[in-house]
Amino acid sequence: MSRNPRTGASARGPRHTEPRELAGLLSAAAGDAARIAAIAPALRGHWLRTVADALEEHAEELTALADTETALGPDRLRGEVGRAAAQARFYGEVAAEGGWLDVRIDRAGPGGPADLRRMNRPLGPVAVFGASNFPFAFGVAGHDTASALAAGCPVLVKAHPAHPLLSARLGTLVSDALRAAGAPAGAFALVTGFDAGLALVDAPEVAAVAFTGSQTAGTALVERAARRPVPVPVFAEMGTVNPAVLTPAAAATAAGVTRAATGFVDSFTLGQGQFCTKPGLLLAPRGSGAAEAAAGALAGVRPGWLLTEGIAAAYRQGLADLVAAGARPVARAEAADGAFAAAPTVLTAPADALRPGSRLLEECFGPVALVVEYDGTPHLRDLLGRLQPSLAAAVASGGPADPDLPWLVEHLARQAGRVVVDGWPTGVATGWAQHHGGPWPATSRPDATSVGAAALDRFTRPVAFQNVPEAALPEALRDGDPWNLPRRVDGVRTGGRS
Amino acid sequence: MSRNPRTGASARGPRHTEPRELAGLLSAAAGDAARIAAIAPALRGHWLRTVADALEEHAEELTALADTETALGPDRLRGEVGRAAAQARFYGEVAAEGGWLDVRIDRAGPGGPADLRRMNRPLGPVAVFGASNFPFAFGVAGHDTASALAAGCPVLVKAHPAHPLLSARLGTLVSDALRAAGAPAGAFALVTGFDAGLALVDAPEVAAVAFTGSQTAGTALVERAARRPVPVPVFAEMGTVNPAVLTPAAAATAAGVTRAATGFVDSFTLGQGQFCTKPGLLLAPRGSGAAEAAAGALAGVRPGWLLTEGIAAAYRQGLADLVAAGARPVARAEAADGAFAAAPTVLTAPADALRPGSRLLEECFGPVALVVEYDGTPHLRDLLGRLQPSLAAAVASGGPADPDLPWLVEHLARQAGRVVVDGWPTGVATGWAQHHGGPWPATSRPDATSVGAAALDRFTRPVAFQNVPEAALPEALRDGDPWNLPRRVDGVRTGGRS
Repeated sequence: MSRNPRTGASARGPRHTEPRELAGLLSAAAGDAARIAAIAPALRGHWLRTVADALEEHAEELTALADTETALGPDRLRGEVGRAAAQARFYGEVAAEGGWLDVRIDRAGPGGPADLRRMNRPLGPVAVFGASNFPFAFGVAGHDTASALAAGCPVLVKAHPAHPLLSARLGTLVSDALRAAGAPAGAFALVTGFDAGLALVDAPEVAAVAFTGSQTAGTALVERAARRPVPVPVFAEMGTVNPAVLTPAAAATAAGVTRAATGFVDSFTLGQGQFCTKPGLLLAPRGSGAAEAAAGALAGVRPGWLLTEGIAAAYRQGLADLVAAGARPVARAEAADGAFAAAPTVLTAPADALRPGSRLLEECFGPVALVVEYDGTPHLRDLLGRLQPSLAAAVASGGPADPDLPWLVEHLARQAGRVVVDGWPTGVATGWAQHHGGPWPATSRPDATSVGAAALDRFTRPVAFQNVPEAALPEALRDGDPWNLPRRVDGVRTGGRS
Repeated sequence: MSRNPRTGASARGPRHTEPRELAGLLSAAAGDAARIAAIAPALRGHWLRTVADALEEHAEELTALADTETALGPDRLRGEVGRAAAQARFYGEVAAEGGWLDVRIDRAGPGGPADLRRMNRPLGPVAVFGASNFPFAFGVAGHDTASALAAGCPVLVKAHPAHPLLSARLGTLVSDALRAAGAPAGAFALVTGFDAGLALVDAPEVAAVAFTGSQTAGTALVERAARRPVPVPVFAEMGTVNPAVLTPAAAATAAGVTRAATGFVDSFTLGQGQFCTKPGLLLAPRGSGAAEAAAGALAGVRPGWLLTEGIAAAYRQGLADLVAAGARPVARAEAADGAFAAAPTVLTAPADALRPGSRLLEECFGPVALVVEYDGTPHLRDLLGRLQPSLAAAVASGGPADPDLPWLVEHLARQAGRVVVDGWPTGVATGWAQHHGGPWPATSRPDATSVGAAALDRFTRPVAFQNVPEAALPEALRDGDPWNLPRRVDGVRTGGRS
C-alpha cells in the first residue's frame, strides 16, 4: 500500500513477489553472475551511465511520484534524482579506473617463489535494502545498487514499503536501461514484499546484503544472515546520535554562537530530520546561550511531514521518551497540517542525564535535537566518552588555530566514521575520499562505506593465482593488461591512468 | 603442561595468567593504543626488525625447544625461525611503504564540496590465537602478531597449549626486543591458559581477534565474539579440504602421472600433513593410475609424529571415519616409533561417495589424502561443485596449452582463496600479492588474508576528515606528507616511493 504523508490517503501498491517468481529472479542473477563479473569494468560503467541518463530523462515524473509518497518536496527530490544519476556515473568511473581490483603481481624469482597474482573478484548476487529517507540516493538505483553493479555483482533490490510505487517505477527504469545497455537479464531485479525480502537474506544465491535503515531492522538482518548455513556479510548502515561540539573559542562571541546554532538547526531539521547523519546532540560550553540561539533559529524552520505513519508515531513517542529521560523542550516550531506532520523541536538536558543506557544517547528519527552544556575540557571529554559511536561527528570551532581542535578531532575520530570541522554532517559528498560508515552500532561493518569509491570494496573477495599461465589468467591479471589497470608489481605501484 | 610427541614425556608448563594480571595487560594495551597508532609506521618497522634480529640470534635455542614440543625436526624448525624473522621484516616494510593506510584526499572545489581526507586507522588491541602446526610462522611472533603491530595495534597473544614453553620463551624474546626498540610496554603481551584466552575474546579492550586453527575452535571464537555487547571482528583461518586436479593432458603419460603423484604425496605428508593448505583430495582421470602412483611415492616418505596427543587420536579416528564413509586404503607408510606417531596413508574412494555431508569432504588433519577418479569434464565439474570452499586449490596440468586450464582455474577461483597451477599449495610465500584466505568455512572472513601485505588491512578502520585544518589532521593526511605516503588526490594516484 502507498500512503501520502500529507493527506494520509492510501493507494494500492504493487503486488508482492511470489516465491516462484523470486526463485526465477535469484536463478537468473546466479546464472549471469560469472558473465557480469568477467565483463570489462568500463563496460559496466556504460551500463551505469545508461541508468543515470534514464533517471535524468524521467526526473520530473520521478520527482512527482516520490513527492506523493514521501512529502520531501519537489526541490529536494529533483535534486536527489540528479544526485543519484551523478552517483551512478561516478561508480562507473571508479569501476573503469580499476584501483578497487587491487591488482598485485609478484613475479617469479630465479629459484625463488612462483609467479603470484592477486585481485579482488566480485562476490556474486547482492541483496539491497534501501532507505526510506533517500528514495533516490539510497533507493532502488542508489549507492548500494550502483556500487554493487560497478563491482560486477548482480543486484536484487527489495522495494521500500515507504515508497512502493516509486520503487516499482525505478525498478522498471533500471531494468529497461540495463537491457538497453546490453546487460544480462540477471544483472538487476526488484522484489516486493516483506516475505520476499526475508527470502532474499536466506537465499543461497545471495552472496552479500547491503542495508540502510534503523538499528532494529539492521540488527535483525545481521542476525538472520548469521543463521544461514553459509553466512554472508551484511553491510548495515544504521546510525546513532551524531554529536556536534561547540568549542569555547567558537562560543567566545554571540555571533559565533548564533552562527553555530543556526547551522545546527538547519542541519538537524533538513529533510525533517530524517537523515542518518543528523546532528542529534550539541555539546556547548555552559552559559554560551547555544540552546536559546537554537530556539531562535528554529523559528525560521518550515515544518513538514514525516515519511510514514510509523515514523510519525515513533517520533511522537521518541519526544515523550526523551522528556521522560530528563530532557526539557526549549522550543518547538509549528507543525504542518496533515497526516504525518511533525513539529521540529529543540531540547536541553543536564549533562548528568547522559548516562549509559539513557534514551538521550539513542537516535530519535525526525526533526529533534538536544543541547547539553559542559563545564570545561575534562567534562567535555567525559561526556564524549559516554556516547555511542556514530557515523559522523562535528566541531564548530573558533578557526584553524582553535586550541581544542587537535584533541577533539583525534578523540572524535576514535568514535566516528567522519569528523567534520566548521560544517555539518548532513551533506555526504560522493567522491574518492568519502567514508560513510562508523564503529558498531553505527554500522555492522566498521571497515565498510556505503558512499564513495570504496563502496565497491564491500562486494569483492581477493583470490591469488599462483603460476597460472597467461591464457588461463583473468584479464585483469594478464601481462598485456588489457584493462589498463593500476597494479602493484613486485611491491611497486605502477600502470593505470595518470 | 608441555609434552614431547616422540616420547610422550611431560614437563611442567608455564603458569596460567591470573585474571588480575590479565586486567593489567589489557589496561596497558588499551592505554598505549593511541600512542602506538600515532607512531610513524617506519618506526614500527624498526620494532619488527628488532624482533626479527632476536629470533635469528636465538635460532638454535628456539629450534631445540620447539623440536622438543612439536617433533617437527630441527631442519624444518630452523627454517621456520628464519621465515618468521623474514615475515616480521616484511610487515615492517609494508607498514613503512604506507599503501595500507589508503590515503585519499579530495580537495575542496570552488563552491563545491569541502576538503575531504580519508585514511585507515588502527583498530586497537588485537588478540592473537596462533596455530599448533607453525610454532614460529603462525606462533607468538608470527604473521598475525607482526602484521597487527605493523598496522599500529597492540597485540595480546594467547600461548598455544601444544608448545607452551616455546610460547613463553618467544613471549619474553618479543617483549624484550620491543622494549629495546623503544616500543611502549603495552605494545605486546603473552597470556597463558584456556580461561585467559576466553577472557581475551570477551575483553572490552580488545578490538579484533585473529585465529589460526580448527573449524571447531574457530567457529567457537566467532560465536563468542558475536555475543559480546560490542561485537568485534574475528579473523579465523580454519581450513577445509584443499582439492587438486590432475587433468587428462597431465595424465597422458605415465611420467606425468608419476610426477604429479609424487608432488601430491610430498605435499600432503609435509610436516606430517599438519598444514592448513595440505592437498587432501586428488581428482584424477579414471584409469590414470594416480592412486597407484601415489602409493608408490608414499614408500619414500619418512614417518614422523603428530603435534599433540589429541591430534594423534583425532587422526586415528579420522582414518577410521574416512573408511567408514567409503574410502579404502591404497597404501600406508611405516609409522615412526613413539608416542604420537602417525602412519602416512593414501586412500581412494568411489566418486559417488563424495556426497554433501560426507566425512570425505571434511579435513582430516595429518598425513592422509584421498584419490578419487572422474569420468570426463562434466563429471569433474560436478565433483568440484560438491566440495567445501577451501584456502587453496591446485591443478596438475599438461602445460600452458592444456585445454582444461582456463575453465578449471576460473571454476576453482570461485571456491578457493588461491589457485595453484603445476605446483602444490603447501608453500605460502610472504609477499605483496599473497592471499591466504578463502570463502566460508575455510575462513570466517573471506575478504581477509593472514599472510602477505594485505594482512595489515584486517586491523584497520577508515575515517574521513572533512574540512579539518592542517594542524589538527593526522600526520598521514597533512599536505606536507611527512611520511611520504602513496596517496590518491582528487582520484589520481600520486606520491609515495618509486
